[in-house]
Amino acid sequence: MADIFDKKPIAAFGEMAETGARPYYRTAAPDAIMAGCNDYLGLATDPRVVEAAAAALARHGTSCSGSRILNGTLPLHEELEAALADFLGCEAALVTTTGFQANLAVGALLGPGDASFSDMANHASLVDGVLLGQGSRHRYRHGDLDHLERLLAAADPDAGKLVITDGLFSMEGDLCPLPGLRELADRYGARLVVDGAHDIGLLGACGRGVAEHFGAMDAVDLFTGTFSKCFGSLGGLLAGPAGIVEYLRYTARPVLFSAAMSPASAAAALASLEIIRTEPARRERVFDHAERLHNGLRALGFSTGPSVTPVVPVHVGHAVPCLRMWQALHDAGVYTNAVVAPAVPRGRALIRVTPQATHTEEQITRILDAFAACGRRLGLVPERAEHDWTPVALARPKLTP
Amino acid sequence: MADIFDKKPIAAFGEMAETGARPYYRTAAPDAIMAGCNDYLGLATDPRVVEAAAAALARHGTSCSGSRILNGTLPLHEELEAALADFLGCEAALVTTTGFQANLAVGALLGPGDASFSDMANHASLVDGVLLGQGSRHRYRHGDLDHLERLLAAADPDAGKLVITDGLFSMEGDLCPLPGLRELADRYGARLVVDGAHDIGLLGACGRGVAEHFGAMDAVDLFTGTFSKCFGSLGGLLAGPAGIVEYLRYTARPVLFSAAMSPASAAAALASLEIIRTEPARRERVFDHAERLHNGLRALGFSTGPSVTPVVPVHVGHAVPCLRMWQALHDAGVYTNAVVAPAVPRGRALIRVTPQATHTEEQITRILDAFAACGRRLGLVPERAEHDWTPVALARPKLTP
Repeated sequence: MADIFDKKPIAAFGEMAETGARPYYRTAAPDAIMAGCNDYLGLATDPRVVEAAAAALARHGTSCSGSRILNGTLPLHEELEAALADFLGCEAALVTTTGFQANLAVGALLGPGDASFSDMANHASLVDGVLLGQGSRHRYRHGDLDHLERLLAAADPDAGKLVITDGLFSMEGDLCPLPGLRELADRYGARLVVDGAHDIGLLGACGRGVAEHFGAMDAVDLFTGTFSKCFGSLGGLLAGPAGIVEYLRYTARPVLFSAAMSPASAAAALASLEIIRTEPARRERVFDHAERLHNGLRALGFSTGPSVTPVVPVHVGHAVPCLRMWQALHDAGVYTNAVVAPAVPRGRALIRVTPQATHTEEQITRILDAFAACGRRLGLVPERAEHDWTPVALARPKLTP
Repeated sequence: MADIFDKKPIAAFGEMAETGARPYYRTAAPDAIMAGCNDYLGLATDPRVVEAAAAALARHGTSCSGSRILNGTLPLHEELEAALADFLGCEAALVTTTGFQANLAVGALLGPGDASFSDMANHASLVDGVLLGQGSRHRYRHGDLDHLERLLAAADPDAGKLVITDGLFSMEGDLCPLPGLRELADRYGARLVVDGAHDIGLLGACGRGVAEHFGAMDAVDLFTGTFSKCFGSLGGLLAGPAGIVEYLRYTARPVLFSAAMSPASAAAALASLEIIRTEPARRERVFDHAERLHNGLRALGFSTGPSVTPVVPVHVGHAVPCLRMWQALHDAGVYTNAVVAPAVPRGRALIRVTPQATHTEEQITRILDAFAACGRRLGLVPERAEHDWTPVALARPKLTP
């Protein structure tokens, strides 16, 4: 009899053993420069955000101890939902316990006769959300509008159709082709879901994300998102037409059957939203740092691929040199993210570097210096960079002058 | 062309309109008695728990802003995992962002050639976890060992097998038949997963849950659980053999791709675990209240069904009288949970009442008085109860004298 607990060893274990690198499930050294954190705006330690969380904790305790639909709704959740709907220009919003669960909830829209069309590089939580839904499932090549159109054209014309994409792809740092997606959605009667996990708060003049960046807030039928990145908190969001948000409130299992966002997290997200609204200079600063990182890394001979954002992926290719590079950077006092399969396809391993608004110029210099020293020592880039390189063209927020 | 956003109205909406009841997504009146909260031990507002959360918030900020595998691991998470493994007598434990996601992670154990066997009344998160896994899926009638055995006997003998059950069923308040499940698992070479969401912290002399209640801690191969009930926090847990916990750390998408439990929630769970370990009188008190509620309701003519725990379900049957009763109780100052389809099968609607260690005797009296007055007015129970009734036999923690 087979024992279901007998599992094959995980590929990354062999690669970690070979390199001696230990990049996973470890606490970062306190004196390292944290360049592998999604708190882009530095709000998780902002005194105003921490203070708002502390006040909610003192008032409401450590937990809602129940789901939103039952005893888990506080006025804080309702305020946050109203503020988000207003911010994103939607009729209604719903906050969920995690961003992962906001994306899972999308599955509740997919009935037996429906069809979903997902970008192949979508976040795991959207992949799982689609798996939890019904209907036919189609995947188009990353960002490939022609492929998407062929799939839409071949689908049952009577099926309800949902196109699902990340806004900012979290590993490669590129954006979804929003205007083209909208055009196809209109042509084939599909609705468009955009996950703003990495872009809401970061992109667009007002921080409203990828749709604002493209000047097309109306292009998105349903936003999903998270509070664990730009908002420095924990939780997720869904925002769109009132009817569909209400439908999700009463049908999405990850909404119905999970304890509510904690009082502290809800208060933190609300305080962060106010800062996102009122302090565009924080976004500017993240992009300034990102530009230095992209161009500095390119000048050294590294590739940051198609990224146009503060997600700065340093493409290494194979897992072994990627893990070696991660360990060398770590030993040099720079904490980054080593991203190997299954988070990216095999052979596309990368080191992800993320600037934060709270980084100093000097810290960015030290990150670049560490990449230069470690990359040269490991032979990832030449000792003297004499190649041509193209400066990055970032998707900068277009602030009103 | 069909619009995927055109959805049928939800059944409960019609029933709510018919009754005028508004039991969902509302904040409880501050002066109501909260009898619909899963914070059984009253720890979400315990000053020691709140203080621990406040200290973590001050030290680490409002978010980990990354997944456990990358930058989201704090010493607090590692301490909590070590303490849980010790508490449950397991080799290893893993904490997840929500209890929902701990159960989703179980899907990572189910490969293409495997077979799962789930109790039909399992929590939605276990249902979704199984849907995210692969292999063949089998469901046995609630608590029915004969049915389970027939399914196990009919399955491919070479398939890896996983039996999956709630420990304490959250709507009906009954327990899984653990000794019988273990026997069948051994006979058919299956592993046994038990979700201790409602029982860890509440059942057993040391609060270790349903396995301790049955005197069979070794009967469970993998525990799952949550911090949003007895622990007064937010998050989930997986505990079992070191190899399988490590496997889940590196393969379960809801673990890999979700931001870590917040510092405040991790600290709260750790502080609560210490109180659960050292203050068994809190469990006693919940059971004292539960006994009064069960027997008082039965004496009035209500049915609390097969429940043997502080989950006190008052079976009403149809949604309309259930919603009317909920509203009447609410107007009388008692907050309960109205549970209708899809949380329970249609025609099995119930009012769920939950005592907490922090309730006073007088509050329990007021809850019973409200049930008497409202139940009689709505004709759910006779004006004078002259029927025979059987006292409840609760699964009380067997404390060392």
